[in-house]
Amino acid sequence: MEKDMETDTERTEIMVKQPYAGRLTALRARMRENGIDAYIIVTDDFHGSEYVGDYFKCREFISGFDGSAGTLVVTEQEAGLWTDGRYFLQARDQLAGTGIELRKMGDPGVPTITEYLKTAVPENGCVGYDGRTISAGFADSIARALESKTVRFRQDADLAGELWENRPEFPHAPIWLLNDRYTGMSRAEKLRSLREKLQQAGADSAIIASLDDIAWLYNFRGSDVEYNPVAMSYTLVSQTDAVLYISPEAVSKEIAQEFAADGISLKPYLQIYEDAKHLKGGVLLDGRSINVALRSALGKTAYCIPMPNPTTLQKAVKTPTECENMRLAHIRDGVAMTKLICWLKHLPDVSAVTEMDVSRKLEQLRRQQPDYLQPSFPSIVAAGAHGAIIHYEPTDKTDVPLEKDSFVLMDTGAHFLQGTTDITRTVALGRITEKQKIHYTAVLRGNLGILDACLKYGCTGVHLDAIARMPLWELGLDYNHGTGHGVGYLLNVHEGPNHIGLKDRNGGMGTVFEPGMITSDEPGLYLEGEYGIRLENLVLTVDRETTEYGRFLGFEALTMVPFDRDAILPECMTERERKTLNTYHARVYEIIAPYLTKEEAGWLRVQTLPL
Amino acid sequence: MEKDMETDTERTEIMVKQPYAGRLTALRARMRENGIDAYIIVTDDFHGSEYVGDYFKCREFISGFDGSAGTLVVTEQEAGLWTDGRYFLQARDQLAGTGIELRKMGDPGVPTITEYLKTAVPENGCVGYDGRTISAGFADSIARALESKTVRFRQDADLAGELWENRPEFPHAPIWLLNDRYTGMSRAEKLRSLREKLQQAGADSAIIASLDDIAWLYNFRGSDVEYNPVAMSYTLVSQTDAVLYISPEAVSKEIAQEFAADGISLKPYLQIYEDAKHLKGGVLLDGRSINVALRSALGKTAYCIPMPNPTTLQKAVKTPTECENMRLAHIRDGVAMTKLICWLKHLPDVSAVTEMDVSRKLEQLRRQQPDYLQPSFPSIVAAGAHGAIIHYEPTDKTDVPLEKDSFVLMDTGAHFLQGTTDITRTVALGRITEKQKIHYTAVLRGNLGILDACLKYGCTGVHLDAIARMPLWELGLDYNHGTGHGVGYLLNVHEGPNHIGLKDRNGGMGTVFEPGMITSDEPGLYLEGEYGIRLENLVLTVDRETTEYGRFLGFEALTMVPFDRDAILPECMTERERKTLNTYHARVYEIIAPYLTKEEAGWLRVQTLPL
Repeated sequence: MEKDMETDTERTEIMVKQPYAGRLTALRARMRENGIDAYIIVTDDFHGSEYVGDYFKCREFISGFDGSAGTLVVTEQEAGLWTDGRYFLQARDQLAGTGIELRKMGDPGVPTITEYLKTAVPENGCVGYDGRTISAGFADSIARALESKTVRFRQDADLAGELWENRPEFPHAPIWLLNDRYTGMSRAEKLRSLREKLQQAGADSAIIASLDDIAWLYNFRGSDVEYNPVAMSYTLVSQTDAVLYISPEAVSKEIAQEFAADGISLKPYLQIYEDAKHLKGGVLLDGRSINVALRSALGKTAYCIPMPNPTTLQKAVKTPTECENMRLAHIRDGVAMTKLICWLKHLPDVSAVTEMDVSRKLEQLRRQQPDYLQPSFPSIVAAGAHGAIIHYEPTDKTDVPLEKDSFVLMDTGAHFLQGTTDITRTVALGRITEKQKIHYTAVLRGNLGILDACLKYGCTGVHLDAIARMPLWELGLDYNHGTGHGVGYLLNVHEGPNHIGLKDRNGGMGTVFEPGMITSDEPGLYLEGEYGIRLENLVLTVDRETTEYGRFLGFEALTMVPFDRDAILPECMTERERKTLNTYHARVYEIIAPYLTKEEAGWLRVQTLPL
Repeated sequence: MEKDMETDTERTEIMVKQPYAGRLTALRARMRENGIDAYIIVTDDFHGSEYVGDYFKCREFISGFDGSAGTLVVTEQEAGLWTDGRYFLQARDQLAGTGIELRKMGDPGVPTITEYLKTAVPENGCVGYDGRTISAGFADSIARALESKTVRFRQDADLAGELWENRPEFPHAPIWLLNDRYTGMSRAEKLRSLREKLQQAGADSAIIASLDDIAWLYNFRGSDVEYNPVAMSYTLVSQTDAVLYISPEAVSKEIAQEFAADGISLKPYLQIYEDAKHLKGGVLLDGRSINVALRSALGKTAYCIPMPNPTTLQKAVKTPTECENMRLAHIRDGVAMTKLICWLKHLPDVSAVTEMDVSRKLEQLRRQQPDYLQPSFPSIVAAGAHGAIIHYEPTDKTDVPLEKDSFVLMDTGAHFLQGTTDITRTVALGRITEKQKIHYTAVLRGNLGILDACLKYGCTGVHLDAIARMPLWELGLDYNHGTGHGVGYLLNVHEGPNHIGLKDRNGGMGTVFEPGMITSDEPGLYLEGEYGIRLENLVLTVDRETTEYGRFLGFEALTMVPFDRDAILPECMTERERKTLNTYHARVYEIIAPYLTKEEAGWLRVQTLPL
C-alpha cells in the first residue's frame, strides 16, 4: 500500500450537522475567553504519527470532517478547512451545514494557511493551538509568515479538547517485548549505537518523539495506534541516562525490570515536558516528529540540534536476523495469499462472493499461519471499477460482489512476529479483454524492472522510479502515486526514509539505498469507472558485488505470490522480463508449494510454468 | 565530449621555474603596497566562461600551472594552489620549484579555500582579488566564511595583471550576424520575450554577463574564445533599452546599423561598470556568471534580483528552425565521420597512421562539407591505452601510431552554420578480444537505453542517468563522468541547463527536459593502461504524445554515424536493444549513403545491416 496513493473519493452520506455548528460556537466562546483571534486544529497526534487514535481527533470533533489530512482554522468571523484534492468531495459533503468553508489546497485563488493567517490575524492579535499536536517545523513556518506583524502565540490551548465531553480515553495499552531472536539487536546494543551517534553529532542528549523509533530502540511493541504496534511514549537519551516516558499502566513489572537491567528508567508520559526544562547542552531534536510544545519546553541551559533521529536510518536497515525473519513472514503470508488466489480462481460463481467476503477469507487464511498477529493496514479488496479508486476500502455500505470478466485488486498486509508484509495482487476473474491484458502486462513490466535493477551504491529511489513507469509511459499511461515506500519490521507499514518516486517526500534526492532496507515495488494503473491494476512486492536491498568501480546492489523479492498468467501477454514483454518473471515464479513454486494442498500445488505449478 | 569527464593525467615535462618564483616575489611586493594580506587568483574570465582567452590566464602567469581549474591564494608567508583530482599530477610537476604549494582539494586534512582564509587572514586584515574574475556566488561564500572576523575586501586589485608585461591583448575580434533562417527567431522577438520574463520576475532590468546568452539574444557570433564563437560583451536590457557593451572595434558599421534598427545601442565594453551605478529598481542578475565587481557596482537606487538569466533556458530550447538546421549539420558531420571510419577500417597498416594524422584527416573531411566553420572543441583521438585517459588530447609530444587489435577513441565536434556537433565513436582496429567486445556492447546498450527512453514531462537527467549506466553496473563497471550535457547552436559545445547525471551540476534535481533541447548521450568505460570506450550521440528531445495521463517525450538521434558492428556481441543485447540499433542503423544508411562513394556506401550497407 502506497502512502501517497489516495486521490478523490465520493461520499453521498448525509451527516447530522447540528452538533458541529454548536461546537464551533462553543469553540469561539472559549477563544474569546482566552483572547485568541485565530485557532488552529491539525490532524496530528503528539508524535507526528501517520495514523492517529480517536483521542486525537479534535478536528473531526469540531468539523465532522474525518479525512486523514486537513487543518481547521477558526476566527471570530470565519472557519475554514484546508485539505487536498483527495478529500475535496468528501469534505464538501461533510462540511455542508457546519458553517465551515472548504479551502481547496492548490486551487487558484485559495490562500495557504500561512497566507490566510497573515490577513486574518490583526496587529497585536493572538494565534492559538495545542502545541503538542503541531510539529516544530509547521510552527516555525507560521511564525515566519507572521514575522512582519506583532502577533502573540498561545501554544498550550487545547480548546477543542476541553469542550469534548466523552472524549475517548488517552491510549495506554500494555506493551510487550520483542525477543532478540526477532530483532537481531539488543536494547543495549541499540542504545550504545545511538549514544555513539549523539557523540558524533555533538549532542549531549536526544529527545525522540516518533513512536516507531522508540518501539524499535527498546525492542517493545504496543497497540495504541490501530495497525501500528506502537505505544504512546517519548524517550530522552544521554550518555548516562535512558528514560522512557510512558503511561505506568502500559508497563508490567516484569518489563520494567528488564528495562532497568538495561539502564532504562521509566517516567510518566507527560513528565517529559517538565524534564525538558532542566536539560543542559545540545539536545538533538527531529523537527518532523517533535512537537513545538516539547521543543519550547527546553530551558535556557539547553540548545536545539535539529537533525533526523539517528534511529530512523538504523531502523530502516534491517539486521540479518530481521531479514531472515522477514523472509519467513513472507513465506507464511505468501501461502495465505496463494491459497486465496487459488480459491478465487476456482470460484464457480464469483458474483456470489463480495469484497468483504474476500477480505474475511484472507484474514482467516492468515490466522492459520503461525505467529500471525494482525493486519498491518486496512485491507483493500476492490472489485471492478472500485479498483480505480485508489484508497478504496470496502465497508458494509460500499461492499459489492466480485465482478465476472474483470479484475479484483487486493492490497493487504500482515504483522507476524517475524515481520510485516504489504502485498498487492490484481486477479483476473473470468475472461478479460485484450486492453486489460495489455495494461496488466505493462504494470507487471514496471514491477519486474525494479526487481531486476542493478544499482551502484549512492543511488536513491529518485534514480529508479522511471524504470517502473517507463512501460506505462510508452503507452501514454501513468499512475499518480509513488512507486515504493519503506516498510517496518513488525512496525509501521510506511516507514521512511527509503522511498521510490520521481521526487523524495522532502523534495530532495532521497535516501541512499543500503543493503538491508526493505521497500515496496508497486506500480499501478487506474481507469476511472473501469478497473484498477496494482502489483506490489516487497524487495530487500542486497549486495551484488564490489569492484574497483564501486559497490553494486540489487533487490531480492521477499513477497512470494504468483502473478496472474491469465492477464499476461508474453509477447508484450522483453525476453529479459520473461526471464525475470520465470525465475521469480520458479522460486515462488519451490518455496510455497510444500505448504499447499495437492490441488493447490497443482494449480500453482501451472501458474508458475515458464512463459 | 562530457565536461565533467576529466580525471588524472600525467605530465613529465619539466618547466622552467625561474620566472614564477620571481613573479611571486613581485606579487607580494604589490600586495604590501596595497595593504593586502591574502590575494586570490582564479581561473575565470570576467564572464564565468568555461574556456578563457590568454588575456585572462593570470593564475598561469604567476604559478605556471595551466590546468583548466585551480585557484591560487598568496599570503606574505605562503602560497597555495587549490585544484582537484584531475590535476594533482600535473600541478605537482608544474608547481615544483615555484614556491607554491599544491593543495589537493578533497584530500583529508586539506582545508578548503575559505577555511584557509579564516586562519590565514589576520583580524582587521585585507583580502584582495580582481572582482571582475570572481563570481558573485564565490565572493559571497568567502564573505560568509570570514563573517566572524573584521576583514576588509579589495575587489578592484588586478595585481597580477599589472605585473604582466606583454600581456596578450584583450580580445576584440569582429562579430558577425547570424541570419534568422539559421536562428528561427529574430533579435526583436528574443528581446520581446526577455522583456516579458523581466516583467514576470518583477525586474526593471537585467544585466547579462554570460557570453553565449548575449550572442544568442542578439543573433551574433564572435571569435574571442577559442572553440566558442562568442565575443567579450555585456548587455543591459530594460523595457525601453537594450545596450550591448562591446569593444567598438568588434562591430562594423553595418552591424551597428542592424542593431540600431532593433533598438539595440552600443557602448564600450567597460562602460557597464559605470552605467550599473545609475540603475534604478530591481536588476536581475545571475550569480553564476555575474562577477562580484559588476554586482558591487550597482548603486543605492537599485537592488539585486538573483535568478538564472531567462535567456539560458530559452536558448536551450531550440527553435524548430534550429532543430531542422541541426539535423542538416549532423548529416554533414555524419558524412565526414562515416568516411573517416570507412577509411580507418580499410587502412592496410594502421600503425602507419598516428592520432594526429586521424585528427587532420577528419578536419579535412569536415572542410569538404558546406558551411563548416571550425572544430567545436579540441579533438580527442586516442589510440589504445590513450583512450583510458579521459581528457587526452594528442599533441606533437604525445602523438602515437594507431594500435592494431585495439580501439581508437575519437571524440570530436564541429561548428557549422547549421549548428554544433559533438560525437564520439570508438572503432575496433584489427581483431579485438571477447572482453573488449563485452565492454563495447555494454557501453552501446547504455547509449541505446537513453535513445530509446520514454519520459513523462517533468523528468530531468537525474531520472535517466541510471538507464545509461545499468548495463555497466550489471558487470561491476562504471564511468566517472556525467552521461550527457546540453549543446549550443553554433555556440558552446557545453551549454546548460539540461544535463544527464546522477546529480545535477548544482546538486539539485536538474532541469526538466523540454522538446527542442539537445543533449549528449555518452556513456563510456575506461581501463587504465588498456583502452577506453565512449559512444556519443546528440539527441533531441521530442514530443511523443499527450494523453489524459500527461505529456510524454522521447529522444531523436541527431548524430548519424554507424556504431562498430565488429565490436558488438548481439547475444549480449536484448531483442529490444537490437531493434533500436537496427532502426538507427537503417536511418544512418538511408540518410548518409547518398553522400558517399560507391565503395563507401557498400561498406556502410554491410555495417548497418540488421543484427
